[in-house]
Amino acid sequence: MLKLYTHLGTIGLAVEIALEEAGAAYDVHRMNFAENEQRAAPYLAINPKSRVPSLETDRGVITETPAIMGYIARSFPAARLSPEGDVFAMAELESLMSYLCAWVHPAAAHRHRGYRWADDPAAIADMRRKAPEVFGEAMHLIDTKLFRGPWALGGTYSVADPYLYVVTGWIPRDGLDLADFPRLADHQARMGERPAVKTVLARIAG
Amino acid sequence: MLKLYTHLGTIGLAVEIALEEAGAAYDVHRMNFAENEQRAAPYLAINPKSRVPSLETDRGVITETPAIMGYIARSFPAARLSPEGDVFAMAELESLMSYLCAWVHPAAAHRHRGYRWADDPAAIADMRRKAPEVFGEAMHLIDTKLFRGPWALGGTYSVADPYLYVVTGWIPRDGLDLADFPRLADHQARMGERPAVKTVLARIAG
Repeated sequence: MLKLYTHLGTIGLAVEIALEEAGAAYDVHRMNFAENEQRAAPYLAINPKSRVPSLETDRGVITETPAIMGYIARSFPAARLSPEGDVFAMAELESLMSYLCAWVHPAAAHRHRGYRWADDPAAIADMRRKAPEVFGEAMHLIDTKLFRGPWALGGTYSVADPYLYVVTGWIPRDGLDLADFPRLADHQARMGERPAVKTVLARIAG
Repeated sequence: MLKLYTHLGTIGLAVEIALEEAGAAYDVHRMNFAENEQRAAPYLAINPKSRVPSLETDRGVITETPAIMGYIARSFPAARLSPEGDVFAMAELESLMSYLCAWVHPAAAHRHRGYRWADDPAAIADMRRKAPEVFGEAMHLIDTKLFRGPWALGGTYSVADPYLYVVTGWIPRDGLDLADFPRLADHQARMGERPAVKTVLARIAG
């Protein structure tokens, strides 16, 4: 059975929703970050990068959210979570996931995890101050240029949607106003109505 | 015809090599960063993110290196640049490209482009100082844990190879010693023997 290693408040939530959408059989292991489980030997044997999410499969562990999302979409084709077979549409899906993974997510991470890229406390404080601006600009670009609607890629739901949903959820956390991103706000509400999202959120709350 | 927008010294080189490996017909437009062509209206209409590389196709523009790489591999299946059809192997390919895109490349970018994440000159200087350490740790992880050999994913060459080749090329630029990354050094030399790499480097030098 698939096993997801994740932590609340991380992008792992997007993978959990995708697994639910796919109708997969899966276990969820919620990491104990307070006790640094992600830096201990048993987890480093699973993912030497010491990050979440990781997805354990019968052929090995997959890390990096876009790769896990691609794996889920391909493993459960009946759920139609990616436009497999349409070369250009697949590139658009992968482009959005790459942008979220490589630019938007790190932009947000500079608010709380500046120590990854600097040591000086003043430098870390300056990154924290600027992070909402950088993250907000990226989300504005998605809201006005990249987002198609009603789903991220247009008429068809894909694994990009839970990915975008979770990142959009960081907007208020960063002190920005979701109302300034009207198309993403609509997407957020639309996602909240999906049974898979309700199931996962209820399980987490429960 | 495909048209690649790129700039010397950027990850666009990896895409240029992949296009050559694919046997694609393509044009290369080398951007004039000195005159801020990447921030001018004509290019923003192509890529509103104001970055390179971008790949113009007959169906629209693709941005983000992993997405462009996936597009090239799928568009030229005879070149066998991805393990299409093997769900787990595709996830491994996408995992390595995501790691390069989302962690390794930004780690390196903190050396020269710290202004993206901070305004204080002292903060930018602290990022510049720490960047080789963060980048070096990531490359060490690839060298010791992720790289399979002789190619990135093992016995079969893929689009991950030119991607890794270009990022490995940044090791000396960052003041690190390639000899400390023996498997990546071997990969670098092996890549340098490929006709596609020789063709592209000769064109750039030419």
